[in-house]
Amino acid sequence: MSAAAWSFAAGPARLPDAVLARARDELFARGTDGACVFERPFSADAFRATLAHARTRLAELLVLPANYRILFMAGGAMQHFSLLPMNLLGPTRRAAYADSGYWSRRAVDEGWKQAAVSVVAQPPAGAPAAPEILPGAGWPIPADAAYCHITPNETADGVAYAALPDTGAVPLVADCTSSFLAAPLDVARFGLIYAGAQKNIGPAGLSVVVVREDLLERASPDLPAPFSYAVQAAQDSCVNTPPTAAIHVAGLVFDWIADAGGLAAMAAANRAKAARLYAAIDGSDGFYTAPVRRDCRSTVNVRFHLADSVQDAVFLAEAERHGLFHLRGHPRLGGLRASLYNAMPMAGVDALTGFMADFMLRRG
Amino acid sequence: MSAAAWSFAAGPARLPDAVLARARDELFARGTDGACVFERPFSADAFRATLAHARTRLAELLVLPANYRILFMAGGAMQHFSLLPMNLLGPTRRAAYADSGYWSRRAVDEGWKQAAVSVVAQPPAGAPAAPEILPGAGWPIPADAAYCHITPNETADGVAYAALPDTGAVPLVADCTSSFLAAPLDVARFGLIYAGAQKNIGPAGLSVVVVREDLLERASPDLPAPFSYAVQAAQDSCVNTPPTAAIHVAGLVFDWIADAGGLAAMAAANRAKAARLYAAIDGSDGFYTAPVRRDCRSTVNVRFHLADSVQDAVFLAEAERHGLFHLRGHPRLGGLRASLYNAMPMAGVDALTGFMADFMLRRG
Repeated sequence: MSAAAWSFAAGPARLPDAVLARARDELFARGTDGACVFERPFSADAFRATLAHARTRLAELLVLPANYRILFMAGGAMQHFSLLPMNLLGPTRRAAYADSGYWSRRAVDEGWKQAAVSVVAQPPAGAPAAPEILPGAGWPIPADAAYCHITPNETADGVAYAALPDTGAVPLVADCTSSFLAAPLDVARFGLIYAGAQKNIGPAGLSVVVVREDLLERASPDLPAPFSYAVQAAQDSCVNTPPTAAIHVAGLVFDWIADAGGLAAMAAANRAKAARLYAAIDGSDGFYTAPVRRDCRSTVNVRFHLADSVQDAVFLAEAERHGLFHLRGHPRLGGLRASLYNAMPMAGVDALTGFMADFMLRRG
Repeated sequence: MSAAAWSFAAGPARLPDAVLARARDELFARGTDGACVFERPFSADAFRATLAHARTRLAELLVLPANYRILFMAGGAMQHFSLLPMNLLGPTRRAAYADSGYWSRRAVDEGWKQAAVSVVAQPPAGAPAAPEILPGAGWPIPADAAYCHITPNETADGVAYAALPDTGAVPLVADCTSSFLAAPLDVARFGLIYAGAQKNIGPAGLSVVVVREDLLERASPDLPAPFSYAVQAAQDSCVNTPPTAAIHVAGLVFDWIADAGGLAAMAAANRAKAARLYAAIDGSDGFYTAPVRRDCRSTVNVRFHLADSVQDAVFLAEAERHGLFHLRGHPRLGGLRASLYNAMPMAGVDALTGFMADFMLRRG
């Protein structure tokens, strides 16, 4: 029985201990202007400095090319399922989407509300647990598509692209929510990247958009001002009051990543954690099963299950008694899932694999 | 020279000391599930209890009629300038708006992007500083208007409605951002109320919608899911990850208001604070001037100015040296403004009026 408790939630997810400690110190201390972070007007120099710090730090981490802009926007990633077509669709109103699992299908569903959607890649029928992902050539992307949308890491399915697709002249657009900052990202390959904060960025209620400047010119002036990437870019993410405290905490997370060695260090640690957990699953002689094909496995959302779903329920209940929480799989997919974002230390993985070995010994 | 510093910002605004103390205790403490408030998945029972608590407490404060629903949504009030017509416009695509100042005009500007807008009340020409507000009969509201929009308190102009208009069968819709929870509200008079959090509710990045259930039936299923009031109501404000920590803090604010005696107590305190500040202005023999007509004056955003704008700048600089901050008027309107929301104690007002008397003595 471990004294510590660990949350393996897919999101909101664990934040680094050092970030929580700094946030506790910084968010509530009233400054010389009588305001703490929660209370400071977004027009104040101190907040503008916080915003500039977060943007600069993130640009450094991403090695951001000069022709890209970073936006901090209120709300989560799902709104971008709709803001994307609002902002980027050209006169043909056509867009391409790759279907790699639950969240990319949610993006398709919202895309259809505004666009003629071409689904250019899909899991083969009858293989829901190990979708084919074809990042090479061969996707039938219409030449007049405004963009091609992918979900490089499927949080629910535990599926990840091993390599990025080549979409030619059609801008590649990606929901990077669960993979953002988990590894270096070749930003120049993308037209636009968006990510909800609550995995590797900071508190829920914030999202980040990284967009190539030329794509900002597509937005109609008739878009609602807070939903226009172009207006948000022109007004430095301050079209209206931004989620000021969440942006402050995001800046602390970016500091923590930089201090820990940047995205290459995050990727190395994430690979090591995932390797240890998948090894425990694959080495269990079938007691535990990882349903995702090895070349598509996510390093941050590790799916597995036991021989039958009744056993999964027993596992979950016992895991909680051992301090291991939020391991239930996505409701639509069932089974178990351990999310191992940047802030999860190896100690958490060891606590989980230790319990898994013990559980197998007793129940196997 | 006071030892304390006070922020009179229009928003994000001061939070109650007791709320900041509870938030500091509660947000960062990891629970038995290994997660603190920032880290807890929104599907967890503990967050659902937090959400239910905030909703129940707010319903109690508002004495909410049974046929109204409360939504907690990511993002600020300005998004609702666009979500309102998206959700509420009928086939005539017509809506009525009363123009009472800067923020209602911003709502009109966004309304025009989707609706045929009828402006049913406007300040008389040449009287920008004291707009006529005509809450009685006589507004030329088209019978086929989907709603009539008002801004009961104009944060920038410092103008407030003395009474609500009678819009007949056309649902009254209100941007209550700066007046929400500052006084009792007769919810049954409204079809829909919305408010950004950063005045009297909690941290920026959250907004509250109070909507009469029958209006939810107007929403098209083609709306983006997170922007549909109907879908948010059906899914308990959890269409996607909500701003969990901001909702937690909002619940603490609702507790604080209830403990302090509810909305009637807030109103009494706000009236007393405003009366003291307006008395200092009106009793200055013209050294300070409040530009808003007495019967339209806001109790929460008090505008004033000196004889010339150069003097305003001197006042601002000296005020800061005396610990009085964020007193600059809205950039479009100039002058000075002191915002006195619920969390501003009388001690803050006294510090301001004390400085004003001293400044007048030295400069008058």
